[in-house]
Amino acid sequence: MTRTIVESKSNTAIIEYDQPFCEQVAAGATMLDVNAGVVYNSNPNPNETEPPLMREVLSLVQGLVDIPLCIDSSVPGALEAGLEVAEGRPLLNSVTGEEERLDAILPLVKKYNVPVVAISNDDTGISEDPDVRFAVAKKIVERAADFGIPAHDIVVDPLVMPIGAMATAGLQVFELVRRLRTELGVNTTCGASNVSFGLPNRHGMNAAFLPMAIASGMTSAIMNPIRPQEMEAIRAANMLMNNDPHGAAWIRANKPAAAEGDAPAGARGGRERRRRRAS
Amino acid sequence: MTRTIVESKSNTAIIEYDQPFCEQVAAGATMLDVNAGVVYNSNPNPNETEPPLMREVLSLVQGLVDIPLCIDSSVPGALEAGLEVAEGRPLLNSVTGEEERLDAILPLVKKYNVPVVAISNDDTGISEDPDVRFAVAKKIVERAADFGIPAHDIVVDPLVMPIGAMATAGLQVFELVRRLRTELGVNTTCGASNVSFGLPNRHGMNAAFLPMAIASGMTSAIMNPIRPQEMEAIRAANMLMNNDPHGAAWIRANKPAAAEGDAPAGARGGRERRRRRAS
Repeated sequence: MTRTIVESKSNTAIIEYDQPFCEQVAAGATMLDVNAGVVYNSNPNPNETEPPLMREVLSLVQGLVDIPLCIDSSVPGALEAGLEVAEGRPLLNSVTGEEERLDAILPLVKKYNVPVVAISNDDTGISEDPDVRFAVAKKIVERAADFGIPAHDIVVDPLVMPIGAMATAGLQVFELVRRLRTELGVNTTCGASNVSFGLPNRHGMNAAFLPMAIASGMTSAIMNPIRPQEMEAIRAANMLMNNDPHGAAWIRANKPAAAEGDAPAGARGGRERRRRRAS
Repeated sequence: MTRTIVESKSNTAIIEYDQPFCEQVAAGATMLDVNAGVVYNSNPNPNETEPPLMREVLSLVQGLVDIPLCIDSSVPGALEAGLEVAEGRPLLNSVTGEEERLDAILPLVKKYNVPVVAISNDDTGISEDPDVRFAVAKKIVERAADFGIPAHDIVVDPLVMPIGAMATAGLQVFELVRRLRTELGVNTTCGASNVSFGLPNRHGMNAAFLPMAIASGMTSAIMNPIRPQEMEAIRAANMLMNNDPHGAAWIRANKPAAAEGDAPAGARGGRERRRRRAS
């Protein structure tokens, strides 16, 4: 079973095929991505500046919210600093197929027994060939297995290209997600909004892409949870994948009051009663 | 190649995996479904009343529009009456797995060399088991082959159940569409809005279902083409499936003027210029 468990002090987020789609995000979402990448003029070396800052930011965030966290940095020292102070079971973001990165990150994943985001690029960069991106993901999973890290603790980002620049970008992701799930048994994530880069009506495009990726087996995405169009699409897709028991979340989100601009139910009911009386 | 060709006097609609999704519909769509089912108090026998009415309605419609037609009736005599007067290559709607229906409709399909919609119910009714619905579709395809009717002239409707009543309805359709495509080599269609029956915000649910079905291989749907939310989802899905060259249809539908309520571009530009000057 491909069940990736991410925990805060007392809350749990589960990424799984038969769970509602996870949004690792910005505010009020399933998980919170914490990145402490800041450029200092006084000291331009992130290997020195980012670890203490990550420690400080994580402590601050944990003091404010009790939600599973994603420790996000390109600096291995900052990832380890985050792991030292994180409560629960954070998600590490990220390892790639680059040799140096594999050597630096996988021991941390093993030592702290945490799940990790695996981005399917390697020392040759990001391939436009989906078969190469699959091979990179496979290499990461195999290398992780050498460390005793199970596939269900790896969340692969197959890399979403802008469809305006690469017409096959959507098809590539749908096929890759299916293969990653069936052949490697990993969970998947993506930067969903990349797909619409440069196009008009990006939210409309994202809102179709997400359900299509979910139907193909995508189990999470990095996205902005305050965009109503994308969130509605995900709620609908969750119900269509049978991951919203009795449609409770869909029905709750689409109560008449919510559809009418969140007018208090009492006030609205009053108006309705008056309307009925008048007719 | 699974290429279902439907023609009017001078226009062609192609249902195919690598073609934009077809909407066989009501107004301004790829194809027009013509149904002449009317109940008369004076003569309650549709076998007598519907054939002449279908002939009359089809002639009338063909005099008004030159768009591929779908001849839709539960009365075999009305289907044949329609075939006699139809110009081009209409789509016949429909055959089922019922023995009497197979015997009545398949000879017409062969005689007039037209494509046909195959609905996956049989003499036992509509099964809730997707494997049974697949078996019925397979039986229709095999029986059609006995008549020399190729699989690419069969457009299977796997039957979409309301997700509010059957939680697995979405998953069933996605899986069935994939199997119908890979194992039987047929095109597919569905009454898309069935899925949201009884739920709040039906258009939001339909607008997620359609891209998911398309990602699974669905190639057409019977739907209302004037619903903006569903149509936007289909345009986005077409581009994401690489069936909208250069995103031309997406970009045309999402021109700034259209997004702002079809205000003339000039007027809008003027407002923007004023705004910029004021800031």
